[in-house]
Amino acid sequence: MARKVSLKDVAREVGLSESAVSQVLNNRPCRISEESKERIREAARRLNYRANEVARGLAMRRSNTIGLIVPDIENPFFSSLAKRLEEACREAGYGLFITNSDDRSDYDCEQLQRLESRGVDGIVFVPSDEILDESADGADLRRVLTELSVPYVMVDRVIEDIECDKVFVDNEYGAHQAVAYLLDHGHTRIGCLARTAHSQNGRLRLYGYENALEERGVPVLPELVRECDYHSDSGYRKVGELIEEGVTAIFSTSDLITAGVMNRLAELGVRVPQDVSVVSFDRNEASVLYLPGITAVQQDVGELARRAFDLLMMRVHGEAGEPELSIVAPELVVGSSVRDLARP
Amino acid sequence: MARKVSLKDVAREVGLSESAVSQVLNNRPCRISEESKERIREAARRLNYRANEVARGLAMRRSNTIGLIVPDIENPFFSSLAKRLEEACREAGYGLFITNSDDRSDYDCEQLQRLESRGVDGIVFVPSDEILDESADGADLRRVLTELSVPYVMVDRVIEDIECDKVFVDNEYGAHQAVAYLLDHGHTRIGCLARTAHSQNGRLRLYGYENALEERGVPVLPELVRECDYHSDSGYRKVGELIEEGVTAIFSTSDLITAGVMNRLAELGVRVPQDVSVVSFDRNEASVLYLPGITAVQQDVGELARRAFDLLMMRVHGEAGEPELSIVAPELVVGSSVRDLARP
Repeated sequence: MARKVSLKDVAREVGLSESAVSQVLNNRPCRISEESKERIREAARRLNYRANEVARGLAMRRSNTIGLIVPDIENPFFSSLAKRLEEACREAGYGLFITNSDDRSDYDCEQLQRLESRGVDGIVFVPSDEILDESADGADLRRVLTELSVPYVMVDRVIEDIECDKVFVDNEYGAHQAVAYLLDHGHTRIGCLARTAHSQNGRLRLYGYENALEERGVPVLPELVRECDYHSDSGYRKVGELIEEGVTAIFSTSDLITAGVMNRLAELGVRVPQDVSVVSFDRNEASVLYLPGITAVQQDVGELARRAFDLLMMRVHGEAGEPELSIVAPELVVGSSVRDLARP
Repeated sequence: MARKVSLKDVAREVGLSESAVSQVLNNRPCRISEESKERIREAARRLNYRANEVARGLAMRRSNTIGLIVPDIENPFFSSLAKRLEEACREAGYGLFITNSDDRSDYDCEQLQRLESRGVDGIVFVPSDEILDESADGADLRRVLTELSVPYVMVDRVIEDIECDKVFVDNEYGAHQAVAYLLDHGHTRIGCLARTAHSQNGRLRLYGYENALEERGVPVLPELVRECDYHSDSGYRKVGELIEEGVTAIFSTSDLITAGVMNRLAELGVRVPQDVSVVSFDRNEASVLYLPGITAVQQDVGELARRAFDLLMMRVHGEAGEPELSIVAPELVVGSSVRDLARP
């Protein structure tokens, strides 16, 4: 562990004042001869002086670092978002600090303040679902966001009554596409595995399911909807109940749920798509969840990351104006997990 | 976005000097009356003054934040490590900034310097495999590590000839356990799926496989070893070749590979364990990879994170002494994916 070389060390080396050295190394206009400038730069190189970027950030007010807050870094959707955002940052000469909130609103507040206090230039923020839940009051989070001295963009999960830049996927539309596709292929007894408790996006996916059915005059049956959470074992545990209800198709609202569904169906000897059709939601190309041939609504995580970064950069560079809403349209990608009931 | 309240604002509010306000709010000894102190504190609260922690960090030299560098945040092993480390940090009142190096040594250097320059108190570092590869020279990384002004701990992947604190799993021993278990159950034609290119840990797992076979006088056959990488589709693509070689068991050296293996075996109608036995490596309880009933060598990610954190904290608090090596022993967890060939 080396002692850090300071401005003072460089100044002593060249026999000039610290302030002269600081002016030259920070490229500030000054009345120092070209020869002395060169000597200072040479000594800084030789001593391996690295500007204290924290101190410099205080003066320059720019760290070329942004922060990201996600609810659960172990969820592949968020680890992908982090990786895609990191790529966008790197291309633009920025670094990314990723933080995890554990889906707790009080930790959101902590992470926001921590990133701010470490001098990031802006924050990409996926709020915890706790705050999205109607029972939570969220006064603390609102206060912290209002008092934040750096710009932020809300991504994926958005709190409706907070005015700020937002980038998100149209979850209801995506779910509607999935279910309309199943209806088009002759399915009417369609099961749904959704996370609706503490998840606004989950609820929107359920609305999409219900609306698609209602538009075609197909009754929405509560016994065909099962509550899951975003873990594989919840799909594994619940899918058997839908099979017992005699569904011909299942809309599984997250690849995490679908991974468990596929394992359990294989164990039960239920073939996809011969015995039951499955449509999933996410379809992350880079995901570690291996679902070959799945028909799924694709959320473009890369697009979400790029738009969030671009919007944040606009604010970091001082562009004012009304908060923007940027809505990413999901797309149904057709695989081989749906059977057309009209064909023999 | 609120303007940040400065010391100057508080000073103006109470009609005292900035330096007086600073002394009081930073709890420094000073000759200011208790009454004025109370007025200053009250005004700071009312104006919602938050100390600029970056500036304070410069003075106090402590940010209560540590950094983590991982090669691939999308790999569930590393996202779990990040989450477990974040939990350890939080318990101790620390925050964690996670960064991704994309398994590139030049990005390792960048991330180390960026974390240092943002004032973290220490760094948990998983080096990119690029540097571990014998062809890479790594001079830059060695220089950056030597010049680092904060302590660091190397975790999971360790560079042998760099002297520093290290915490890692005994990969060779884990692999040896896995293969010895298969041998104990009567298997001798055992396939191995391993990542050996650019992966020291992968090579160690292969050595463990080879040593276990050699100890029992079972020949090591190159046709039974297939190169994979840490993605599910590589297991999916390669496992068929081992089945064609007539193996009775497969040692799959990562759950990521195993996820693809299980999918492909199901498609091929090859039953586990009736037709082929499988032992995996990782067995992360929280993993999104759903492998129910798998027999696997478990790497305790939580233990790895805790030991790394404890060792780093010791250095952050100034404890000197020889670099420590902390080796986490992996453990074979028996599931239902291995058949005993001695039984009918």
